[in-house]
Amino acid sequence: MQSQPVSIFERAFKKLVPGGLESVSRRGADIMSIAEDLPETDVAIVKEWIENCLAENGGQVEARNRAALLGRAYLKLSQTGKIRFFGLLSEQFGVEESSVEKAIDHWHKADANRKTTAAQALRKALEPSRIALLKQFNGVPSGVKFLVDMRDELLNFCKDYPALKPLETDLRDLLATWFDVGLLQLEEINWNSSAAMLEKLIAYEAVHAIKSWNDLKNRLDSDRRCFAFIHPNMPDEPLIFVEVALVNGLAGNVQKLLDESAPTQDINTADTAIFYSISNAQRGLAGISFGNFLIKQVVKRLQDEFPQLKQFATLSPVPGFRRWLDSTPADRLRELPGGEKWLSYPPPRDPDPANLVDPAGGQQEAIMKLAAAYLCTTRPGNGRAIDPVAHFHLSNGAQIARLNWLADTSEKGISQSAGLMVNYLYELPKIVHRSERYTSMGVISQSSAIKKLLK
Amino acid sequence: MQSQPVSIFERAFKKLVPGGLESVSRRGADIMSIAEDLPETDVAIVKEWIENCLAENGGQVEARNRAALLGRAYLKLSQTGKIRFFGLLSEQFGVEESSVEKAIDHWHKADANRKTTAAQALRKALEPSRIALLKQFNGVPSGVKFLVDMRDELLNFCKDYPALKPLETDLRDLLATWFDVGLLQLEEINWNSSAAMLEKLIAYEAVHAIKSWNDLKNRLDSDRRCFAFIHPNMPDEPLIFVEVALVNGLAGNVQKLLDESAPTQDINTADTAIFYSISNAQRGLAGISFGNFLIKQVVKRLQDEFPQLKQFATLSPVPGFRRWLDSTPADRLRELPGGEKWLSYPPPRDPDPANLVDPAGGQQEAIMKLAAAYLCTTRPGNGRAIDPVAHFHLSNGAQIARLNWLADTSEKGISQSAGLMVNYLYELPKIVHRSERYTSMGVISQSSAIKKLLK
Amino acid sequence: MQSQPVSIFERAFKKLVPGGLESVSRRGADIMSIAEDLPETDVAIVKEWIENCLAENGGQVEARNRAALLGRAYLKLSQTGKIRFFGLLSEQFGVEESSVEKAIDHWHKADANRKTTAAQALRKALEPSRIALLKQFNGVPSGVKFLVDMRDELLNFCKDYPALKPLETDLRDLLATWFDVGLLQLEEINWNSSAAMLEKLIAYEAVHAIKSWNDLKNRLDSDRRCFAFIHPNMPDEPLIFVEVALVNGLAGNVQKLLDESAPTQDINTADTAIFYSISNAQRGLAGISFGNFLIKQVVKRLQDEFPQLKQFATLSPVPGFRRWLDSTPADRLRELPGGEKWLSYPPPRDPDPANLVDPAGGQQEAIMKLAAAYLCTTRPGNGRAIDPVAHFHLSNGAQIARLNWLADTSEKGISQSAGLMVNYLYELPKIVHRSERYTSMGVISQSSAIKKLLK
Amino acid sequence: MQSQPVSIFERAFKKLVPGGLESVSRRGADIMSIAEDLPETDVAIVKEWIENCLAENGGQVEARNRAALLGRAYLKLSQTGKIRFFGLLSEQFGVEESSVEKAIDHWHKADANRKTTAAQALRKALEPSRIALLKQFNGVPSGVKFLVDMRDELLNFCKDYPALKPLETDLRDLLATWFDVGLLQLEEINWNSSAAMLEKLIAYEAVHAIKSWNDLKNRLDSDRRCFAFIHPNMPDEPLIFVEVALVNGLAGNVQKLLDESAPTQDINTADTAIFYSISNAQRGLAGISFGNFLIKQVVKRLQDEFPQLKQFATLSPVPGFRRWLDSTPADRLRELPGGEKWLSYPPPRDPDPANLVDPAGGQQEAIMKLAAAYLCTTRPGNGRAIDPVAHFHLSNGAQIARLNWLADTSEKGISQSAGLMVNYLYELPKIVHRSERYTSMGVISQSSAIKKLLK
Repeated sequence: MQSQPVSIFERAFKKLVPGGLESVSRRGADIMSIAEDLPETDVAIVKEWIENCLAENGGQVEARNRAALLGRAYLKLSQTGKIRFFGLLSEQFGVEESSVEKAIDHWHKADANRKTTAAQALRKALEPSRIALLKQFNGVPSGVKFLVDMRDELLNFCKDYPALKPLETDLRDLLATWFDVGLLQLEEINWNSSAAMLEKLIAYEAVHAIKSWNDLKNRLDSDRRCFAFIHPNMPDEPLIFVEVALVNGLAGNVQKLLDESAPTQDINTADTAIFYSISNAQRGLAGISFGNFLIKQVVKRLQDEFPQLKQFATLSPVPGFRRWLDSTPADRLRELPGGEKWLSYPPPRDPDPANLVDPAGGQQEAIMKLAAAYLCTTRPGNGRAIDPVAHFHLSNGAQIARLNWLADTSEKGISQSAGLMVNYLYELPKIVHRSERYTSMGVISQSSAIKKLLK
Repeated sequence: MQSQPVSIFERAFKKLVPGGLESVSRRGADIMSIAEDLPETDVAIVKEWIENCLAENGGQVEARNRAALLGRAYLKLSQTGKIRFFGLLSEQFGVEESSVEKAIDHWHKADANRKTTAAQALRKALEPSRIALLKQFNGVPSGVKFLVDMRDELLNFCKDYPALKPLETDLRDLLATWFDVGLLQLEEINWNSSAAMLEKLIAYEAVHAIKSWNDLKNRLDSDRRCFAFIHPNMPDEPLIFVEVALVNGLAGNVQKLLDESAPTQDINTADTAIFYSISNAQRGLAGISFGNFLIKQVVKRLQDEFPQLKQFATLSPVPGFRRWLDSTPADRLRELPGGEKWLSYPPPRDPDPANLVDPAGGQQEAIMKLAAAYLCTTRPGNGRAIDPVAHFHLSNGAQIARLNWLADTSEKGISQSAGLMVNYLYELPKIVHRSERYTSMGVISQSSAIKKLLK
Repeated sequence: MQSQPVSIFERAFKKLVPGGLESVSRRGADIMSIAEDLPETDVAIVKEWIENCLAENGGQVEARNRAALLGRAYLKLSQTGKIRFFGLLSEQFGVEESSVEKAIDHWHKADANRKTTAAQALRKALEPSRIALLKQFNGVPSGVKFLVDMRDELLNFCKDYPALKPLETDLRDLLATWFDVGLLQLEEINWNSSAAMLEKLIAYEAVHAIKSWNDLKNRLDSDRRCFAFIHPNMPDEPLIFVEVALVNGLAGNVQKLLDESAPTQDINTADTAIFYSISNAQRGLAGISFGNFLIKQVVKRLQDEFPQLKQFATLSPVPGFRRWLDSTPADRLRELPGGEKWLSYPPPRDPDPANLVDPAGGQQEAIMKLAAAYLCTTRPGNGRAIDPVAHFHLSNGAQIARLNWLADTSEKGISQSAGLMVNYLYELPKIVHRSERYTSMGVISQSSAIKKLLK
Repeated sequence: MQSQPVSIFERAFKKLVPGGLESVSRRGADIMSIAEDLPETDVAIVKEWIENCLAENGGQVEARNRAALLGRAYLKLSQTGKIRFFGLLSEQFGVEESSVEKAIDHWHKADANRKTTAAQALRKALEPSRIALLKQFNGVPSGVKFLVDMRDELLNFCKDYPALKPLETDLRDLLATWFDVGLLQLEEINWNSSAAMLEKLIAYEAVHAIKSWNDLKNRLDSDRRCFAFIHPNMPDEPLIFVEVALVNGLAGNVQKLLDESAPTQDINTADTAIFYSISNAQRGLAGISFGNFLIKQVVKRLQDEFPQLKQFATLSPVPGFRRWLDSTPADRLRELPGGEKWLSYPPPRDPDPANLVDPAGGQQEAIMKLAAAYLCTTRPGNGRAIDPVAHFHLSNGAQIARLNWLADTSEKGISQSAGLMVNYLYELPKIVHRSERYTSMGVISQSSAIKKLLK
């Protein structure tokens, strides 16, 4: 994840306020001169400035210009300064209790005819005044990205300063409205995309790191596809992207898939699309989910382009498996298929590469059985699969189709997933049904191969 | 104003739900078979369907597909059917009072630490459930335009069915967030724009009707500019657009400006940009204002392209003048400059073209003095100019610079504005100051020419 | 056909020579001051100027700037002035005979090893010096269009001034190289195309005139397609375009096809693509043929987009039929099927609308039989069909598939084609074979329906 | 320089001939089955195939399809096979002597009226028949690039097989017409350009090699510009490109300019544009010159974007200096300023880095004086500067403005240019005059600094 360089905003703000500070207001010089740690006296200046933005004296356009200038000042703040700035917004620009009390009173007294209007008025009274300021920030080019990055910082601060949480929630709600999936564009990314866009793939890829421009080029070869959701106001920034390989049959090994020296598949004979990586690119949009929509829109797009495709599946890690294996009590493991056998191996019992490569080590079957059990385990309270990736795909209506041995032998693959990878299968006609059954009843759809492992 | 043809949505929905109704749900056939007047039994079907959309069983993607199907059914409804549909949304998918009561209770009891969270929860409880459905509609291509057109219809119905007002307000608030001016794009429209875009200018121009494609081409000639705000999700639809003529000195006659046979101005020697028409294009966005932003961004754009420009002004109608003149009591008129003289003329005293053309009619001075008085009259309560166009430009920080005699001799021009037009002058360094003084104190900036008329 | 307005070149030239005339040369003022009729003294100035362009003193860039200035001067010339200008180019900037003689001599003396080089040198010597000047003209924006329009004028002058023919031929050869069909782009034209492009379709349509923007919009509806060849250096100018209707079965009436009130065909069920109009747009490119390539590339494009299409056919006029019918001696007609009957009708024997509408007039069969005979008649000398449209499609490998009665009842349709239209069928697998047999042996492929008429 | 991968042509050809070989002709299979070394029997097949293409039986479209198939076969040939293929074209598809003789005869006998037509006919007779085939090759997507690469290969073969030279000349003439500078587009290349384009800059940069994508990104930073000429039929291929740095004052050191860690210049205060690298990208276009046009168009473009720029200059190598220094006889050197001193240094007298860095080595002045002398030396015969880079810029009308010591300390910079670099200054108002004086009289424009060195 990467924030925009300050200079981009600087340039944008300058363009917006071409006359310089003085053209915005007599006080323009003041706001730009605040110290980076935002000491008490400067907080007062900022407070007055914000009030000025909200008052909209001289018109909305000018108020937004003032907000833009404030944004520019914000970018110069240190960590401490930013925390103080957010603190100011949290404490002083929230909800006025007396107004809320009055609006509640109105609502209670309203007769049936006026109930709805009173409810709307109460809702208005409950909207913190800072929200208007946040909206004003988007008035600059790059303003939306500015807010996304601001939330990224806020999320960091919230850990230590829980009082900032409500502000963070306000910002999330605002972004959630703007980043409604219906307003996004699905874009194909390929070697003809701009370098500005492509370098972000390299920076943001979270599942299987992209090592170089050559690695990237290989992933955009003629037998590959890459799609991203784009917000029209952040045209060079992927929000989330998925990498797809067109292959024959289910792919069971990610290193093979990413091997730059492997021959290119003839896409006219490919029958399977493998989604082998899906990455969120904006930490500032955490909690606003796009993945489900992305996968399904991409499936539709691929079907249009390649009518011969018969299967859509993922090649996914099992990121919580090793931790679960190490932390589950022996009693509990013993009850599971493969558990007894696993425990009978002499320590060290970790599935390290050396052991894994040697099937004579005999651990393979035990590990795979335990992994299948892990994947199909749901949390008693909420019926959700304990593996987060499994939960994501099962909610979307996928089936656990196949477990692959020695499928990701990278360090991360071994240490988190014991080298295993899963194919989740998206069978279009069954998606709704499976999603419903999983969501409402915790039923996990399993292929016969998985069922066999579970015995 | 023009709604999108039904067929566009139809096509979009079909693309979204390629497998046909059955793929969405067993009930797909039901929702598409509702009668166009939406009788009681069908209302029940729709209600259940909406509950289904909101429940998101089978996942968000599928819920949106169901909402899309509902949107498709909506388009087949008659007026009556639509009113019933909106009635259902208003009555059944609003706010649950008991939840609100509970949330109020929580808020009252919350200690300082939890007050904000409780306020957020109360705000959530006050959000009508239908809002989630409205958002789901945008999940189709053309979905945003669909909602804009839906509000257009709602606004019509609200006159007779005030109970629909809260629903209309919900929709307005949602659209106001999406159509935030910071998210819009300023686009230059010219003869290289698509015919699909240009035919909308012809349809939407509200001030001086565009008579033909030739008339339009003339307005897009090398000495003209046209700019529009565009929403990225409605790329072929202008939201608002302004037409500009590059001329020498203030233009004082709109027919001359629109004369197709007039020679083209050499733009290298033009010193003045005249904004002679500004039209809102989407009735469904009524109450969400863009005009102020549009004018100021266009001024900035023109300054960049033509550094030699010295003046930015409008050529605007005085739409309420004749009505005011006819309805103001004689006593009141007599007190105004020009009033006595005007009343001394034998009836008919209407400024009909024949009289107007004959300056020997002698009415010119009296009428211009009265018009100046009219323009500078503010409403006692709120300090706003009584002429709506004057109010708009004065709020933006413009000055009333010049009144032009026989400036619009079209039927509409004569019958509303007595043939007069005004130049409102935008002097950049003075805009903020003038806007502030007008907004806070009702002070109307007048040129010396106007001041003279007022004596 | 339409020439670019002078102003476009003016602007382009100004841009090219921003410093004004003086920056090009001390003599810049001279060339721009030549009189529009180009009297003798000014011819001398032009001559010297051209010599200067060809000499490339000061570099190629400057030479092209000078040529651009000359182009600008050319545009101000009257008809007389242009004729003199072309005369100058023809007489003074051709081939130098002495150089040719010398090069011939060299060639004759060259031994086998040097023969080819000598041939190349001779070819160089035979290239008129004016060709270098013509190439220099393209150095301005719009320069290619400038040359196309120049040839348009030349073609007109050549009728009266045959001495200009060699110059015209030089220009044609140059344009033929630049407009090689491999360098053109196939572009789909639709309602999202620019108005600048679309107005040219209206201007250039040569077969069935486009009456209005509404008529045009109807021809670009969802069940229609329009394709054009574009040259990358004239991006807003179609070179040739074809209009296609997607229908069910062969269409037999062009008025029905163009009826704006007719319902739109569901393109998913269409099985036939009818090419109902093909127009050359640039008279200046006369003799450089694109039609054959356009039709075949469009067929390929349509097959990709609509795999369900089963037939590709034209709906074409029979433009020479009436003239042939009126000018063929009775003896000759009598020998043809239908001829005897036709001659037995009492005069007037012209197929006027009144008679045509009344099948009881009994002329239908006779006329159709004669039309079939006409279409299948080839010129003794060269084996080419005497109808030019028939010859075009037969060369391309099409079959004469069907004659349609009362298919074009416009005035032009009646007076040229007796209201008849023909479907020429393009059956892809047979195109090569049919084209070869027609071209080499004059064999005309006929459907059984046509064969029946010929009996 | 890089050829397109074969696969791109393969795909293009397949698209062109979707029905496969059989659809082109019964002989399709034959042409694709020729052996890669093109033995005698296969030469016969090819010969017949070419005759077929030229005959255009079955129409032009089909003839081009056949040519495309031949192109596909060509790509499979080995070096030997290609040489034989070119040999066939050279020997068998040239000019027919008997036709030439006849045309010469006609020309001799033609009277004044028919002389021009006879000359045109003779020119036609002198056009080798293979040229028609070469043109047909462009009928495929990527066809133009195919021919450019073909000439690249031909140029290689010509060294050993001079008999192929005429064919190479034909191809050059054809390409020169298509790549006329007036038909090219000036395109700005930046970080928003496609990766497909940018990787070609990396591959083609000939002056200062681009070491990595980071190096490239630095060269496209906000204080840099890069422009290329593009041919519309090879949109992803730069033909020539120039890299520009916006700086303050003349830049005198290329390593500093390329230092990735150097701060970015504020472009609003830059007063000088430095052209520090200009590279031809297509070896197949050797001898068709674009550089002069590129520089001057870029100057114009930069002036439009940055009116504050006061100087346009290059930072160029002196590539022939060291070779000249080492090969010039001592007698001759001694006569030159600095020569005596230079010869007085004890060997080794090469300006190796160690010596160069140490000004106490004292060689600096001597070397710089000699370099100035070298740059201002012209060849007796033709008056051209002996340094090729100097000749290029002097022809364009530039001045030798400054010699920079230790300006390129790369290995290549030291070994070819003794670490020196030159600023050539482009002063717009003087360009024509300087170019003329240099071209016609060999006068080299020198700044006073250079003149001083020459003393």
